[in-house]
Amino acid sequence: MSAYKKPHAPDFSHLRAHCASIPPIGTEEFLTRQRALANVLRDLGGAAYIAEPGPNALFFANVSLSDWHTSERPFLLIVTPSAGETSARVSVLTPAFEETRARLLTIPAPEDDGVHFTAWPEEGDPYATALREVQDASGLDKGVVFVDESVRFFIADRLRTSGSKFEVKIAPPEVRALRERKSVAELALMSCANEVTVLSIRAVRESMYIGMKASEASKWMNQALAEAGLKGDFTLMLFGEDAARPHGGGVDRVLGKHDLVLIDTGGQLHGYGSDITRTFALPDSEIPSKHLAIWYTVQSAQSAARSAAQAGAQAGDVDAAARSIITRAGYGEYFTHRLGHGIGLETHEDPYLRGNNNITLAIGNTFSDEPGVYIDGKVGVRLEDIFVVDEDGKARFLTEAVGGQARSPWDP
Amino acid sequence: MSAYKKPHAPDFSHLRAHCASIPPIGTEEFLTRQRALANVLRDLGGAAYIAEPGPNALFFANVSLSDWHTSERPFLLIVTPSAGETSARVSVLTPAFEETRARLLTIPAPEDDGVHFTAWPEEGDPYATALREVQDASGLDKGVVFVDESVRFFIADRLRTSGSKFEVKIAPPEVRALRERKSVAELALMSCANEVTVLSIRAVRESMYIGMKASEASKWMNQALAEAGLKGDFTLMLFGEDAARPHGGGVDRVLGKHDLVLIDTGGQLHGYGSDITRTFALPDSEIPSKHLAIWYTVQSAQSAARSAAQAGAQAGDVDAAARSIITRAGYGEYFTHRLGHGIGLETHEDPYLRGNNNITLAIGNTFSDEPGVYIDGKVGVRLEDIFVVDEDGKARFLTEAVGGQARSPWDP
Repeated sequence: MSAYKKPHAPDFSHLRAHCASIPPIGTEEFLTRQRALANVLRDLGGAAYIAEPGPNALFFANVSLSDWHTSERPFLLIVTPSAGETSARVSVLTPAFEETRARLLTIPAPEDDGVHFTAWPEEGDPYATALREVQDASGLDKGVVFVDESVRFFIADRLRTSGSKFEVKIAPPEVRALRERKSVAELALMSCANEVTVLSIRAVRESMYIGMKASEASKWMNQALAEAGLKGDFTLMLFGEDAARPHGGGVDRVLGKHDLVLIDTGGQLHGYGSDITRTFALPDSEIPSKHLAIWYTVQSAQSAARSAAQAGAQAGDVDAAARSIITRAGYGEYFTHRLGHGIGLETHEDPYLRGNNNITLAIGNTFSDEPGVYIDGKVGVRLEDIFVVDEDGKARFLTEAVGGQARSPWDP
Repeated sequence: MSAYKKPHAPDFSHLRAHCASIPPIGTEEFLTRQRALANVLRDLGGAAYIAEPGPNALFFANVSLSDWHTSERPFLLIVTPSAGETSARVSVLTPAFEETRARLLTIPAPEDDGVHFTAWPEEGDPYATALREVQDASGLDKGVVFVDESVRFFIADRLRTSGSKFEVKIAPPEVRALRERKSVAELALMSCANEVTVLSIRAVRESMYIGMKASEASKWMNQALAEAGLKGDFTLMLFGEDAARPHGGGVDRVLGKHDLVLIDTGGQLHGYGSDITRTFALPDSEIPSKHLAIWYTVQSAQSAARSAAQAGAQAGDVDAAARSIITRAGYGEYFTHRLGHGIGLETHEDPYLRGNNNITLAIGNTFSDEPGVYIDGKVGVRLEDIFVVDEDGKARFLTEAVGGQARSPWDP
């Protein structure tokens, strides 16, 4: 393989500027989210909403898992509707000996009220303390407390058995729905993150060469995304038949002349994720025509799904639109996964584009559109872009500003 | 600070050999655990035990979170008692399109039975599929299914509402208790991990110098633990008054002549954790006598707790033994956290040594013994070693082979 030489070390510095000026979510938007949550709680008769650090606590109060690592000591966000039609009270339950550190977090809260910190001592019962805070905040001594669906089971169970009169239920879909329709600020972040991910893939491809190892290309991909300013990045770099396993797991393959390259990659910009897959050839690749035919089939399926993805359409029908193209081309059995997933503060989040899902698409929803064909031991092709259901009810790829979906195996 | 110079770059290669020959947990021990779990299920009338990848799935079936990352697609370990008094059936629920990858996992199971893989398709209901597997495996169509306490709440909730007649409950303490009394093989791993962590701290200290930054020392600590063969390592490196916050959060402090150094660090050997804290001076440090007095008070408290930690003693009384020493010395209000935690496959796990905990210590339990005194803006001292309640009912530090607890601020 030594006949093939990488011409020069990759330079990714041009990616730096692309998202540098996009601001994170502002305080006002957090307050709007908290008020919306309080309204949902009022409508459903909920006394409070409780979450651990994670995507939902990040959405409502700017507390992610990197801000506060969950441990055996409960740290809980508690939001209660408060007096006045649209206002919310934000409380934080913290271990007493970590209260100082908890108070260093930047948690948006109504200016006239602030964040209410409730500390539980090491020898105390954090669950009873949390529900006393709900009682104080809500003025109620019974009712329903909605617990975020992603908390650890023991948190929900111990709240339930802590001896209060509150009923503990999993948070209803109405709470989750608050995250499902993206705002202008969220779409700006997601668009830039996805654009720069496409630009990063293209930049990596520029330097790739036949004879190189997947691990080297993967390292470049990480470097490119880091230059682009994305955090928590992930990369699947699969050559040839290794791409037939949708989530990878091959050895460190060397790129051959007849191999397609599959890169599935992304990262976060101020918490909001990108997720892009490109399957491509290098300029001097010689790709079997059957594999090229598969590529164009997958591209058609991706386009068909985008056309079907209109406001009001059922998720299952969008999946079916892509699947029927691939089935008609004779590869139905090789499209082994759902079409796509919601995306935002989590790379995979509700709702999902899969068979039998009868939820309907709404304006502001964002999804991956990622059909694929995987023939074990031979070839794998997947193309993935993120789209938003736009104000006009039609799906628009967030990568539009950099050309949208891949145009050909040589123009990803 | 340029007057102080590090004499030479640290060499940690001598740490490599220490744990190199300690074997991971063997297949037979996994099968013993599965049989013990099946027996608990039989005793409590449970039809099955269900867990996600994590410490419990690692304990029973060698599936940690690094082996299988949890996603929105449920991947579940299902253990059911099977015919014959002491045998267990091991099933795995996997997303269908990831079944190939799931089958690559090394999951111990009875030789004559193997692992039963149950795949759910993208458009299917994983929860109904899981409970059908419970039905097939147990021959029951109703009963209690115990769900691991660390699964995500939605997993438990959707199992509960999936339309089967099984009742879904959080796994009882009897299941957790199976992890709480360590075996000979587990203690060998934990002893070596803790020993080499002490050796690593000492090796780092050898190269430390007044005027250096905490970040540099912290990097050395990581290098030392990596050489020692520990994975997933963590380090708190706190200088002077920064150590007054038990979990850190200071700036990147430069080490001064009058500062104590607090290092709280550890990592895992074949999954089993170490957790050691040393607070020490350098040879040319000039430590205020008040801080030295605190050091010796904390050392006495650590010793008192170890003496109190006998089989049959209450957890709360062990905490009190340390606390009374520190209180008598006038620092009671500055010992702001519990005395210690269980440790094993998780660095912090049940049971806990804290006030009001009336569980009794049993032979084979392993705990951290880590009293501390934290005076905000001034000084922080913590000393931590792991002990096991030995066959004779007395507590023995796992670091005994390398000298046990710290002897003085100059002999950590």
